[in-house]
Amino acid sequence: MTRPVALTLNVGSSSLKFGLFDIEGPPIELGFGIVENIGTALRLKFTCNGTTITRASSERGPADHRSAVSAAFALLHSQVPSAKVVAVGHRVVHGGPAYAAPRIVSDNLLDDLSRFAPFAPLHQPHNIAGIKAAMAEFPDALQVACFDTAFHRNHPKVNDLFALPRAYYERGVRRYGFHGLSYDYVAGELRRIAPQLHAGRVVMAHLGNGASMCAMEGGRSVASTMGFTALDGLPMGTRTGQIDPGIIFYLLREEGMALDEVIELFYSKSGLLGLSDLSHDMRVLEAAGTPEAEEAIDYFVFRIRRELGALAATLGGLDAVVFCGGIGENSRLVRERVCDGMGWIGIGIDPDRNAENATVISPDHSRIQVMVIPTSEELVIARAIKRFREAPNMPEAGGKPLGQAGPDPA
Amino acid sequence: MTRPVALTLNVGSSSLKFGLFDIEGPPIELGFGIVENIGTALRLKFTCNGTTITRASSERGPADHRSAVSAAFALLHSQVPSAKVVAVGHRVVHGGPAYAAPRIVSDNLLDDLSRFAPFAPLHQPHNIAGIKAAMAEFPDALQVACFDTAFHRNHPKVNDLFALPRAYYERGVRRYGFHGLSYDYVAGELRRIAPQLHAGRVVMAHLGNGASMCAMEGGRSVASTMGFTALDGLPMGTRTGQIDPGIIFYLLREEGMALDEVIELFYSKSGLLGLSDLSHDMRVLEAAGTPEAEEAIDYFVFRIRRELGALAATLGGLDAVVFCGGIGENSRLVRERVCDGMGWIGIGIDPDRNAENATVISPDHSRIQVMVIPTSEELVIARAIKRFREAPNMPEAGGKPLGQAGPDPA
Repeated sequence: MTRPVALTLNVGSSSLKFGLFDIEGPPIELGFGIVENIGTALRLKFTCNGTTITRASSERGPADHRSAVSAAFALLHSQVPSAKVVAVGHRVVHGGPAYAAPRIVSDNLLDDLSRFAPFAPLHQPHNIAGIKAAMAEFPDALQVACFDTAFHRNHPKVNDLFALPRAYYERGVRRYGFHGLSYDYVAGELRRIAPQLHAGRVVMAHLGNGASMCAMEGGRSVASTMGFTALDGLPMGTRTGQIDPGIIFYLLREEGMALDEVIELFYSKSGLLGLSDLSHDMRVLEAAGTPEAEEAIDYFVFRIRRELGALAATLGGLDAVVFCGGIGENSRLVRERVCDGMGWIGIGIDPDRNAENATVISPDHSRIQVMVIPTSEELVIARAIKRFREAPNMPEAGGKPLGQAGPDPA
Repeated sequence: MTRPVALTLNVGSSSLKFGLFDIEGPPIELGFGIVENIGTALRLKFTCNGTTITRASSERGPADHRSAVSAAFALLHSQVPSAKVVAVGHRVVHGGPAYAAPRIVSDNLLDDLSRFAPFAPLHQPHNIAGIKAAMAEFPDALQVACFDTAFHRNHPKVNDLFALPRAYYERGVRRYGFHGLSYDYVAGELRRIAPQLHAGRVVMAHLGNGASMCAMEGGRSVASTMGFTALDGLPMGTRTGQIDPGIIFYLLREEGMALDEVIELFYSKSGLLGLSDLSHDMRVLEAAGTPEAEEAIDYFVFRIRRELGALAATLGGLDAVVFCGGIGENSRLVRERVCDGMGWIGIGIDPDRNAENATVISPDHSRIQVMVIPTSEELVIARAIKRFREAPNMPEAGGKPLGQAGPDPA
């Protein structure tokens, strides 16, 4: 007997994550898989019904994104043979200036997504390849695209601009912001847990291997630390974050580096890895205790504090700070050091609550609530799928991202 | 009869400013000149003893920096024939990682300044050319170099880092910060006017055609919005300020722009000019009232507010905000809009005081003092000259920039 399920697919530059959901009622995760080492030798891991299995790819030679998707589908069929995939939801990094909510995949949509590929050349082509592979594998399934940029699409224009000649904005050079699926989920959780804070001025910090911060007011994103690409803003595992553009000119012109070398340097060799000369992984850095690892943590924390002040100024004050993402949810050290000395703005944390990764880690009677809310990009995608399944004729899934309370703009 | 005077020289990319000072007692400005339109047809202006004269260059063809310096010297000799230049002080944009105070020019120093030229290719070569021209013109005069980076040289390391591999910091890719002569002067004035604020946590905003902000604690710069080059941080007359580095990759790789075109775009066609599609000049934008000019002003103000929050977070609170530079000293609109809605942090302004460009523009009993202090880079240079004249054997002028109260680091 077959069981109808929904699949979520998140194809990154070097890994692929997929989730299996029951969407008959509120979405329930049935299984979760990851395919790592795309570009070299694939490693697969899948957890379902309390059992985790791992596999190494049997392919010879480096495996590309297409092989990774095939491997994920093969694993799924072999491990859950009863699953009938009736819908697939895709995380798509770039939805361009217009898409402020999920969409059903169509030829027109795929054309649009290809047009946005130059804005995110390291990610978007893989996302599109994932969609096409899923369409071939599950030709009868509903295909839904969910955009990492969508949650930020209602920014006031001043928060979307760069100080370039006006024509650049018109042709799409804007501060898009990313991690929107994560912020959408966390905003929804915040609305559920503390609706009065969700209605106020909130800074959310998604701190993972990628990292950004989002200023939210009345349930809507008004600013992000990420800009045109996912390179800007906070330093990340291997990415620079904010950096003087003059450094690129210097490296290209004075040091004679090739453009591809600079791109590789900024995306893959910088950030925590570059500063620590050790690892992109905060857990490794916290355990290492070397001066270089300390300096990398110092810098990460310093830039988060700096952006916290900047986003508070953008909001004209602050009611809550929410940490999420791998580091945000698990590193008490990073949370403690971000909040230390921020008493001038009304931020403080309770050490015991912080040590427990409690939902609220600020002391009682704090003016600003500091919270930890575990995120789930997959669940946001599964919910979008469910909305489209229930209203298949709507152009977008319910008209708005989940965390956004207000009416949808025209 | 000749009269001993000191000359200050500030050679920019397209203009040259020079000041004539009596330095027998505290430096007194005797005259001030400017040579504009370097690269096209020079225009000269010199004010001395209450009289202003203007001249257009008689040269055919475009005049370079060398011609501009010669024209300035010729004007000086013809207008003030009694002046005997006994010392020349030079504004030098880049003093590299080491120079934290002015220096007497030597062959070694010139070698160092040439080594820093790749860090500031649009400015440093002209500064060096100015020094060499002055040495040839006034061979017996004391030559002093004053660095725009010097005031910032005691930043905590975390404020000097970019998240690049460690080798880049070692070879000089750091957040230097600029406008140091201006901040040095304003800090000295603040110490004179309000020593208790000077000893506290201050954000200074130098808003002119170039623009930056400096966080100062206990009289020392601890952070600047400008980074490795004078392109980073706030948007400026024609420069982008902070911008996603991914945009450069996009323009070079996806739009096929040449590197020199991108550099020209970022330095000369962006900022207020790019956004307004009208002018780099705030006075023109304020008068224009077009939606595009409003958008340019909005963006300028928004980014200043954002950095004000970020620098306050860096300082862990705020005691004073000081505006200086052409826009900072004269645009009540910009000051008003920067401070509007910053009450959450304790910032407010009194409209009447603001309209008068008063020294203190915050209301009585404000928690944070908001001030306007006119700057003078020339006077800082003249003071450095005077210190060296009085202690010619010291390696640096008095050991520290004027505005810095603490002991000099090793």
